[in-house]
Amino acid sequence: MKETKFELIFPANEILIGKTLNTNGRWMARKITSLGGKVVRFTVIEDDVGVISATMRRAAKRSNVIIVSGGLGPTYDDKTLQGLAKAIGRTLKLNKKAFGMIQEKYNKIQQMGIIKNAKITNHRKKMAMLPEGTIPLPNPVGSAPGVYAEYEGVRIICLPGVPSELEAIFEESVVPVIKEMVKGTTFAEESFVLEEIVESELAPLIEQTMNKNSCVYIKSHPLGYEGISRVIIHITATGDEDVKRRVGEVANFLKRELIRRGGKIKEDS
Amino acid sequence: MKETKFELIFPANEILIGKTLNTNGRWMARKITSLGGKVVRFTVIEDDVGVISATMRRAAKRSNVIIVSGGLGPTYDDKTLQGLAKAIGRTLKLNKKAFGMIQEKYNKIQQMGIIKNAKITNHRKKMAMLPEGTIPLPNPVGSAPGVYAEYEGVRIICLPGVPSELEAIFEESVVPVIKEMVKGTTFAEESFVLEEIVESELAPLIEQTMNKNSCVYIKSHPLGYEGISRVIIHITATGDEDVKRRVGEVANFLKRELIRRGGKIKEDS
Repeated sequence: MKETKFELIFPANEILIGKTLNTNGRWMARKITSLGGKVVRFTVIEDDVGVISATMRRAAKRSNVIIVSGGLGPTYDDKTLQGLAKAIGRTLKLNKKAFGMIQEKYNKIQQMGIIKNAKITNHRKKMAMLPEGTIPLPNPVGSAPGVYAEYEGVRIICLPGVPSELEAIFEESVVPVIKEMVKGTTFAEESFVLEEIVESELAPLIEQTMNKNSCVYIKSHPLGYEGISRVIIHITATGDEDVKRRVGEVANFLKRELIRRGGKIKEDS
Repeated sequence: MKETKFELIFPANEILIGKTLNTNGRWMARKITSLGGKVVRFTVIEDDVGVISATMRRAAKRSNVIIVSGGLGPTYDDKTLQGLAKAIGRTLKLNKKAFGMIQEKYNKIQQMGIIKNAKITNHRKKMAMLPEGTIPLPNPVGSAPGVYAEYEGVRIICLPGVPSELEAIFEESVVPVIKEMVKGTTFAEESFVLEEIVESELAPLIEQTMNKNSCVYIKSHPLGYEGISRVIIHITATGDEDVKRRVGEVANFLKRELIRRGGKIKEDS
């Protein structure tokens, strides 16, 4: 089965200075993985047009779908659409559909009393300046629309950085794209906590088990040993509908074998 | 003043499937930034030797210091040192100093009753197989030492992925390196929450203020508008010892101006 590769790009100075935790990355990775897609890279970069476009172009050589989060807003440091335009060699132009979405949104929040004036200023208009030939994605929560582009067979999707806006557009407009691309692929996982056996004692067993079950991936994450050793064992597989059964079998085998060797099994919270 | 550029690399399938949040990234970025260094990129990649080495080499072309977190442990999927060896063109060899550190650690946890046998198995020995000419960094918490390498004028530092181990090695062995490199550089920041003015109304003021204060960076992060609009304003600067005063002045100017325009200022928690 051919894997569909996803790559996530975050133009986000606030992550690079350690102010913000990349929760959007985890949310999207979880979502894409559970739908059967494979995320191969996250890249957090500076809010710089040259860096954004170069990172998009390099990602387009490796992956089938690129999702960019952040940099769609009205301020000068929101540079994702300039970066996209440069990456795919198109010019920014007022997109009427996007303009309509933005106007409608400002009218609505004016009626709600949040702003006094719904007039489309230059800074608001900026959010409707899309690279030619790209498609705005409705934002049910905030003002900046998402943007969908195709470039040399690769899909590039730009979403806002505000989590509630990102998640709403993702559910409405991105999930259908992913489902269509990964049709027939299933993801399965199980995990548990192992106590009283350290990772270095565990390593040969994991290796042998993986060699016997080639489609299943087993990873151990030590939680440190304060008093007793604790390691998370995480078993995953992506493939046809049979993967759930295979992951379950491997998890049960490992649990039995580890208990036999003196380990204690606890639930992974 | 010449900036010292840092780049962080995370070989971490567990982040790519959305299981783990990249808290190590935030912790290190915060630390490096507060010491006066500039983090220009985070890259999360698959646990694959070819991908790890290619990512390190590309980073070495852009940055002065590369810090890699994760992949130093005893299991087959801990591949960072193989990746480092390939990137810098050296072979893996048993490092006596690293071997001594690991032996001492296993002796200690055997005495504590955590393991029965402190013998150095092949999987434990793996953590002492370092690229030739690199230096092990003591791990005060866990078993895998960190690794320090120099390659074409770039420093490459590999640390474990377990947060308590990463933080301990970072404080003891990485902070002194950073301090020496960024000597004379200071970082300053202030942030506050603005209510009742939306980001698009704020954008022109931020732009004008940044144009007048070229060394100061102002970023707005909308928190969404449920009932009322809330935006975090974050002001940062890296430079000589005067930056603290300048960031303070810009913050005070913005607060006064935003209150005059009908905004409410709250503390950023």
